Amino acid sequence: MNGANGAEPALHPEIEPIAFLLGTWRGEGKGEYPTIEAFAYGEEIRFRHVGKPFLTYTQRTWAADDGRPLHAETGYLRPKPEGRIEIVLAHATGVTEIQEGAVAGQTVEVASTNIGLASSAKEVTLLERTFRVEGDLLTYELRMAAVGVPLTHHISAELRRVE
Amino acid sequence: MNGANGAEPALHPEIEPIAFLLGTWRGEGKGEYPTIEAFAYGEEIRFRHVGKPFLTYTQRTWAADDGRPLHAETGYLRPKPEGRIEIVLAHATGVTEIQEGAVAGQTVEVASTNIGLASSAKEVTLLERTFRVEGDLLTYELRMAAVGVPLTHHISAELRRVE
Repeated sequence: MNGANGAEPALHPEIEPIAFLLGTWRGEGKGEYPTIEAFAYGEEIRFRHVGKPFLTYTQRTWAADDGRPLHAETGYLRPKPEGRIEIVLAHATGVTEIQEGAVAGQTVEVASTNIGLASSAKEVTLLERTFRVEGDLLTYELRMAAVGVPLTHHISAELRRVE
Repeated sequence: MNGANGAEPALHPEIEPIAFLLGTWRGEGKGEYPTIEAFAYGEEIRFRHVGKPFLTYTQRTWAADDGRPLHAETGYLRPKPEGRIEIVLAHATGVTEIQEGAVAGQTVEVASTNIGLASSAKEVTLLERTFRVEGDLLTYELRMAAVGVPLTHHISAELRRVE
C-alpha cells in the first residue's frame, strides 16, 4: 500500500537488514508461565513494508483445540544504524512495548525499555524477544517478567512462510 | 478473521458502545504545529473486530500533494464498564500510547496516561484525542505536547465510511 493508490512501493534501503522477515508466516506455538496452565496455539504473523524505513507487524493467535482467537498484537520494526533495531508494539490486552536491541544475521534480539499498561491490564514489567529466520522457517521466543514473577520463558513458536 | 479460519465472528457484547466506529473510513486532514509547516494529508482508518472485547485500529496517511506515505499507527480500543475506554497504540515514528477516557454517545474522548519513546523518536509528552461519528462521517482531532511545546492542536480530519 502506497499513499492514495495501491501500487507496490520499492523497498526502502534501510529495511534491507530485516527484509528476511517480510511475508506471512503461520505455525504453532506453546506457552507456559508459573501463574497459568500450559497452552498450545496456532499463530499468524505478517511483516509488510510500505516503502518507508519500517516494517509493519501484525500478529494473532488462536487456541490449538477449538480455534477461538487468543492474543493479538501489532506495531512497527525500525532498523537503525550499526545493526540496532527499535520495535514498538501495542497488545490487545492493554499493554504497549518499546523494544530495543540488535539484528545479527537473521536473528533479532530485543528487550523492553518501556512498558505501558492500561488500567485494566495485567502487570508486565519486562519483555525480551528473539526472532530467528532460517529459509522459510521463523522461530521466536518471548521471556516475560510479570505479576511478580521474574524474567521467565513464556512462549515460543515455529512458523513457516506461506506467502 | 476468527482463529484458524476466516469466518466472520459475532460482535462481542462489550463492543456495542463503540460499534459505531466499525468500518473503513477515508478522507482528508490538516496538520499544524509551532515547530513545523502546516500540511494537508489523505487518510484511511480501519476499525475491525474479531469477536473479542476489543476493536483493532489501523491508520495511515499520505501527503495531499503527491500521495507519498506519511504517518502510520495501529492498536486496539478496549471499552470498559460505565462508558470508560482504553486505547493502546504504536506509531511507526517509534512512539507508543496508553490512552484512557470515555465514550459518550458517538464521541470518544481520551488522554494519554503513558507515552513510550524509542531512542530515536521525537519527544512527545502528552496526547489527547477526540473521535466523533455522525452517520457516515468520522471527525477527529488530536492535541499534542511535544518537543517543549505545551498541549496544542496538532491535526484534525474528516473521513467518510467507505465500507
